[in-house]
Amino acid sequence: MTGSLVIAGLGPGAEGMITPEVTAALSDATDVVGYVPYVNRVAPRDGLRLHPSDNRVELERATLALEMALKGQRVVVVSSGDPGVFAMASAVFEAMENRPDFQTLDIRVLPGITAMLAAAAAIGAPLGHDFCAINLSDNLKPFVLIERRLRLAAQADFAMAFYNPRSASRPEGFARVLEILREECGPDRLISFARAVSTPDQHTATVTLAEATAEMADMRTVVILGNASTRRVGRFVYTPRSAA
Amino acid sequence: MTGSLVIAGLGPGAEGMITPEVTAALSDATDVVGYVPYVNRVAPRDGLRLHPSDNRVELERATLALEMALKGQRVVVVSSGDPGVFAMASAVFEAMENRPDFQTLDIRVLPGITAMLAAAAAIGAPLGHDFCAINLSDNLKPFVLIERRLRLAAQADFAMAFYNPRSASRPEGFARVLEILREECGPDRLISFARAVSTPDQHTATVTLAEATAEMADMRTVVILGNASTRRVGRFVYTPRSAA
Repeated sequence: MTGSLVIAGLGPGAEGMITPEVTAALSDATDVVGYVPYVNRVAPRDGLRLHPSDNRVELERATLALEMALKGQRVVVVSSGDPGVFAMASAVFEAMENRPDFQTLDIRVLPGITAMLAAAAAIGAPLGHDFCAINLSDNLKPFVLIERRLRLAAQADFAMAFYNPRSASRPEGFARVLEILREECGPDRLISFARAVSTPDQHTATVTLAEATAEMADMRTVVILGNASTRRVGRFVYTPRSAA
Repeated sequence: MTGSLVIAGLGPGAEGMITPEVTAALSDATDVVGYVPYVNRVAPRDGLRLHPSDNRVELERATLALEMALKGQRVVVVSSGDPGVFAMASAVFEAMENRPDFQTLDIRVLPGITAMLAAAAAIGAPLGHDFCAINLSDNLKPFVLIERRLRLAAQADFAMAFYNPRSASRPEGFARVLEILREECGPDRLISFARAVSTPDQHTATVTLAEATAEMADMRTVVILGNASTRRVGRFVYTPRSAA
């Protein structure tokens, strides 16, 4: 039996945002691997083994998935959003380094609706011009690098999407991010907070940087900062297609 | 009758990448509006009027859609990829400025799989760390701003996704982009070209910046530049989750 590994994005939460190719891969799987809350989104059925694991064990999880595929199982690694954006795809490729046996496997990455795109759609079109995506978690990089990227992105007048803005273990980090953004972009720049996008708990709010506080974000929130031209129209926020 | 306007993303081309909520919106529509090749992707049926229009008439197209919604029609504006990324959502909001009648309409944006995410998935995980998305079309901004953004993004060590890299009307622009990137990132940086992603014509290639030529891209190509840590593993290209 020939095994396979699919790295699939489940989108931000709504069933209606899961692509048909991801649904088909899950229907064909023998094993589903992922962080507990994402594996919980996969319906159990006969013949499907679920392998939920804790957060911050990405490499071990990836290696488990690759080992099962090597044994002939049809494995799907699930991520929230898109697997290639601050999610499991990079961890799987990392686990393949120095393992030629893993590198010959049948491996496919299936994209998903990443959180910033669902958040942007809920808000209007704040990413309608050039933008960047920054993971604010400092687990995998020093804060000094985050600060450098924020300042350069502001100088480039990118709109910005921030993933993992705030956690219990480092509540002060996002407050410092807001200070840096106020220094670079001024008090009137629009910033949007989109929590639990596409789920029944969805909540969005847009304020100016002067009004923004760290408490407006938690780990279920995606934060989108506009560029210098971003503005409101009716109940929406959008960034024009033309540069200022 | 109450009209509505949905701005929907059809994804990069494959049927299997169209989300169920977009399919449902199209099934419920009375009118579909969009650029010719995207409207051509919508199956005709009784009771559905198709309104294809040419490229570069985005504001007129958006106004037509809003006018029809105001008359009570259920209108879907279709974009390729995601409507909020270099596509129709910003044009619709632009057309709503100074039109309070448009601003009270029932309007929703439905996200889609944008080209860079499908391209990244086909290549591996080149956008697995902080990244930016830049529209290289200079229809809506001067080249001097593109150059400034490229240099700042390189200094921030963002991976970069480039939309609309090259057109017949300005073939020299992308050659200049490659020169700037070589100056900022050196000759060994990996750059991937993904053409017609998710369609039967899909073709991907990864080379170094030293090897890259402008002819490797056309208007159906998304180009992804790695960051300083991006590397190959087997037949894939990925960017590690940790900063260098």
